[in-house]
Amino acid sequence: MTIHAINTRNQLPGRIVEIVHGPVVSEVDIETASGIVTSIVTSRSIKALNLDVGTEVLAVFKATEVMLAKVSP
Amino acid sequence: MTIHAINTRNQLPGRIVEIVHGPVVSEVDIETASGIVTSIVTSRSIKALNLDVGTEVLAVFKATEVMLAKVSP
Amino acid sequence: MTIHAINTRNQLPGRIVEIVHGPVVSEVDIETASGIVTSIVTSRSIKALNLDVGTEVLAVFKATEVMLAKVSP
Amino acid sequence: MTIHAINTRNQLPGRIVEIVHGPVVSEVDIETASGIVTSIVTSRSIKALNLDVGTEVLAVFKATEVMLAKVSP
Amino acid sequence: MTIHAINTRNQLPGRIVEIVHGPVVSEVDIETASGIVTSIVTSRSIKALNLDVGTEVLAVFKATEVMLAKVSP
Amino acid sequence: MTIHAINTRNQLPGRIVEIVHGPVVSEVDIETASGIVTSIVTSRSIKALNLDVGTEVLAVFKATEVMLAKVSP
Repeated sequence: MTIHAINTRNQLPGRIVEIVHGPVVSEVDIETASGIVTSIVTSRSIKALNLDVGTEVLAVFKATEVMLAKVSP
Repeated sequence: MTIHAINTRNQLPGRIVEIVHGPVVSEVDIETASGIVTSIVTSRSIKALNLDVGTEVLAVFKATEVMLAKVSP
Repeated sequence: MTIHAINTRNQLPGRIVEIVHGPVVSEVDIETASGIVTSIVTSRSIKALNLDVGTEVLAVFKATEVMLAKVSP
Repeated sequence: MTIHAINTRNQLPGRIVEIVHGPVVSEVDIETASGIVTSIVTSRSIKALNLDVGTEVLAVFKATEVMLAKVSP
Repeated sequence: MTIHAINTRNQLPGRIVEIVHGPVVSEVDIETASGIVTSIVTSRSIKALNLDVGTEVLAVFKATEVMLAKVSP
Repeated sequence: MTIHAINTRNQLPGRIVEIVHGPVVSEVDIETASGIVTSIVTSRSIKALNLDVGTEVLAVFKATEVMLAKVSP
């Protein structure tokens, strides 16, 4: 199946630089133009999508999940 | 109160480029090195944090919220 | 851009039966084999994806978002 | 304690078909009318709710967590 | 339908002290022992659950949604 | 980096009473005035923030993540 388009505007392109494998979930670190973005996904989906270090991916998240913080000068 | 550190590694620096104000929630668009990131927050928190176009912020989200997608070549 | 594959296993096919439009976010009700699934998305993404009553969509959500409940007999 | 009603409209009935146990979190796969729905919950809550293969459950998630995707014809 | 038990351990008892009504979503402020907890829910679910100022509710959220922050002394 | 302010109003103060360590994610139980709040975070962030039993923290979550439930009398 090919997804034609997804509603979320938050899709950051990057490349996987590290995977920490676990029995149920795994941590995937993606190098993006904004720095490292970390994702926790099921270990099964890593196999299903054939993800590995070097794979180019999109980090996708909903706008409702994003909090805003102000940084001290 | 000043938060010293937060556990999430996903903190994207950017600048607010647009706010769509609503009665309960508002949309905040942030220009980051990875493109526009959109956040939906309560309209009250926009006032409480004094957010406006041009304000520098961090877009913060948990690793558990991030999905991974592969793009067709 | 075409998304080749997305890691989430939770992708419910359905048809939009109602949209409640709001200034910032809108409610989209989707008829699925498991009943009505409701989604809150930005009103902008409804225009961007050209969603309307009758459009066939996938309701997509991460496994980490799903809680489990037991029902009394 | 009995929860009388919960505000979310997204409650998919199903039956547990597999549990992948982990030290902290576990994966629970639920067969629903819309296909397999996967949930990641704490391993403690699996014991607390006495969940096992065959148990009938509701998969519950908030409308704000649901993204919409269009599929290529 | 009566939900017998839900897997999440995060269920904070409180009383609604304010509702900000919107066309699609509404903000509900709940006074708890830990201070005010704010929830954004669909305006329809407020009617469906018959929620009003003074109603006693549980604020329910998944463990995967909770971030941890350290505060400066 | 010091975060000056974060938009979410849901910040529950508490003290860590237990940590269940896992290879990828860990469970952190926090004693708050409203009872135990449980958080699932990456095991790396526990080291990065130097979290241990007894550490005082804030449990932070977005308003969009909070569901409301009514309890039977």
